[in-house]
Amino acid sequence: MNIGITGTGCYVPSIKIDNTDFNKNEFLNADGTAFGNSNEVIIEKFKSITGIAERRYAEKDLKTSDLGSLAAEKAIEDAKINKEDLDYIIFAHNFGDIVYGTIQGDMLPSLATRVKHNLRIKNPKCVAYDILFGCPGWVEGVIQAQAFIKSGMAKKCLVIGGETLSRVTDPHDRDSMIYSDGAGATIVEANSDGNILNHTSATYANGEAYYLYFGETYNQDTKEDTKYIKMFGRKIYEFAVTYVPQALKECLDGSGIGIDDVKKIFIHQANEKMDEAIVKRFYKLYEKEVPKGIMPMNISKMGNNSVATIPTLFDMVRRGKLENQDVQKGDVVIFASVGAGMNINAIVYRY
Amino acid sequence: MNIGITGTGCYVPSIKIDNTDFNKNEFLNADGTAFGNSNEVIIEKFKSITGIAERRYAEKDLKTSDLGSLAAEKAIEDAKINKEDLDYIIFAHNFGDIVYGTIQGDMLPSLATRVKHNLRIKNPKCVAYDILFGCPGWVEGVIQAQAFIKSGMAKKCLVIGGETLSRVTDPHDRDSMIYSDGAGATIVEANSDGNILNHTSATYANGEAYYLYFGETYNQDTKEDTKYIKMFGRKIYEFAVTYVPQALKECLDGSGIGIDDVKKIFIHQANEKMDEAIVKRFYKLYEKEVPKGIMPMNISKMGNNSVATIPTLFDMVRRGKLENQDVQKGDVVIFASVGAGMNINAIVYRY
Repeated sequence: MNIGITGTGCYVPSIKIDNTDFNKNEFLNADGTAFGNSNEVIIEKFKSITGIAERRYAEKDLKTSDLGSLAAEKAIEDAKINKEDLDYIIFAHNFGDIVYGTIQGDMLPSLATRVKHNLRIKNPKCVAYDILFGCPGWVEGVIQAQAFIKSGMAKKCLVIGGETLSRVTDPHDRDSMIYSDGAGATIVEANSDGNILNHTSATYANGEAYYLYFGETYNQDTKEDTKYIKMFGRKIYEFAVTYVPQALKECLDGSGIGIDDVKKIFIHQANEKMDEAIVKRFYKLYEKEVPKGIMPMNISKMGNNSVATIPTLFDMVRRGKLENQDVQKGDVVIFASVGAGMNINAIVYRY
Repeated sequence: MNIGITGTGCYVPSIKIDNTDFNKNEFLNADGTAFGNSNEVIIEKFKSITGIAERRYAEKDLKTSDLGSLAAEKAIEDAKINKEDLDYIIFAHNFGDIVYGTIQGDMLPSLATRVKHNLRIKNPKCVAYDILFGCPGWVEGVIQAQAFIKSGMAKKCLVIGGETLSRVTDPHDRDSMIYSDGAGATIVEANSDGNILNHTSATYANGEAYYLYFGETYNQDTKEDTKYIKMFGRKIYEFAVTYVPQALKECLDGSGIGIDDVKKIFIHQANEKMDEAIVKRFYKLYEKEVPKGIMPMNISKMGNNSVATIPTLFDMVRRGKLENQDVQKGDVVIFASVGAGMNINAIVYRY
């Protein structure tokens, strides 16, 4: 039985934040000391490494579950299914709904329930739950949907990744320029044209568990104890380029597909240089060069919106909204992600 | 293939809070007005409805993931498995780790990752994720573990329910007396003696979605915008007694087991009177009286610790720690829960 993605949708918030919008931030080192460089220099260096020129922030009146609902509507329409036929709504996020200007994440009820509520889905047998798995949450949600379908518990699942990282960023942290907001959604169905050929998933939780964490501002002059998203960027980079290529190879080899038959790699976009290094090392494991255009990217305009990046990117390519990128029926593609946990996962997929 | 629970463990915090500890709370109505009654009268009425005489609060230096880790260690030991053989760690909660005295929930990294970290489990193939599904989260985690095992993705899963509700309670809300802290953990395995015979799961997300929600204090004199766990108790009661008995019947009938062969019902303990009404209506659907001792309860001493209640209760009965209650090999038992979402689920299980 084929299990595949029959519909996609995304919501790209309208508020565009340029790199120059950070010109007046007071960026500090983790110990609270000032940088030796001007913001112009800091931002230029940031852009050259991450590839990010601008990013999107959610409208002030919207929360993560709202972004997810808007993306979900499009995916349901795209799949041409009756929303009442959904067996599961799986919502991947990491911070819950955060009302603009507040600091508490709200997950009571779950964001999946809120989507079900917003979409006015009545069928009580449509089970709505949230999954927390770092940035790889959407890929993991698809893997879970596959398990439910395989085991006879479901036929149609809605898998959403949504986040408003702009609401958990420390303005004194350079890394705050990375983060953005958005949502992507997909319908995973039994008996589809497309098919999940293989998947892999892993959690590294010893030295790596707190590479991404919820921590205090770098501004030591404040008395607030608000926590923000924080990362050890260098350690994450080293971790990712070490373990992700291996995971991709294992997943691809297990699928029975040869490296030359891979048409696209949809990878979580945290940092352009890092993604390029991962893909380069992956091809090196086969003693190959990276084929041109293998890795669709929208990070320059979207930033890193966590669980939303892969489903958003996939939706844009499917709909012909990313220049010089497309995907054709029968193409083998790879979805791959790495993030807080530290989690790594991948899916080899025949479109 | 049998899929069953091969080990259990729980962590009961040491801090005991008596009903009399609420004698000095200033309880208010939702609109901020005072009650006409003294706290003694309020507390007496509270006790007569909920059955709660005392509850446990987590030690100040422990967080939800710590409680979960302590319960998990016991479950692993009980199942006599090598922790490195676990394929999944599934942590059900609703508020993340909340450091005592703070208001932000922390789920970065996930609580499942923190457990894996605390237990020093090295195997990266042990996938750690969190599920948010209201109080029924532990039951749902077991259902997910079953799906992973059935679909060939796993053989051994650790499913934890843990919560520190004491850290999200409004002292001006009578309902705050209901909530408590704790954690329960179970090992779900393929090829076990016990077996999941059937399960059911549902989400009611229209009028019901916000019966349990994150809301402001009843004290209108404060300017703080901190949010707390809030409920429409009467609506939840009516919802639960209407839909849970039906769900239990559907699950039992689908299992092929007769009502007379049910030996125990382990039900989520939110309110003793509500649980009694649910079970009474369940038996009425078969035109039967409720058998004596069918429903083990520890709510009088434990309060409602959300996702932790069923695995804690089951562990206590298995270990002979609940007076006049036991469970024997071959017994058919039901696990059933209702809570935020609004979610309802049940498992018919041969022990």
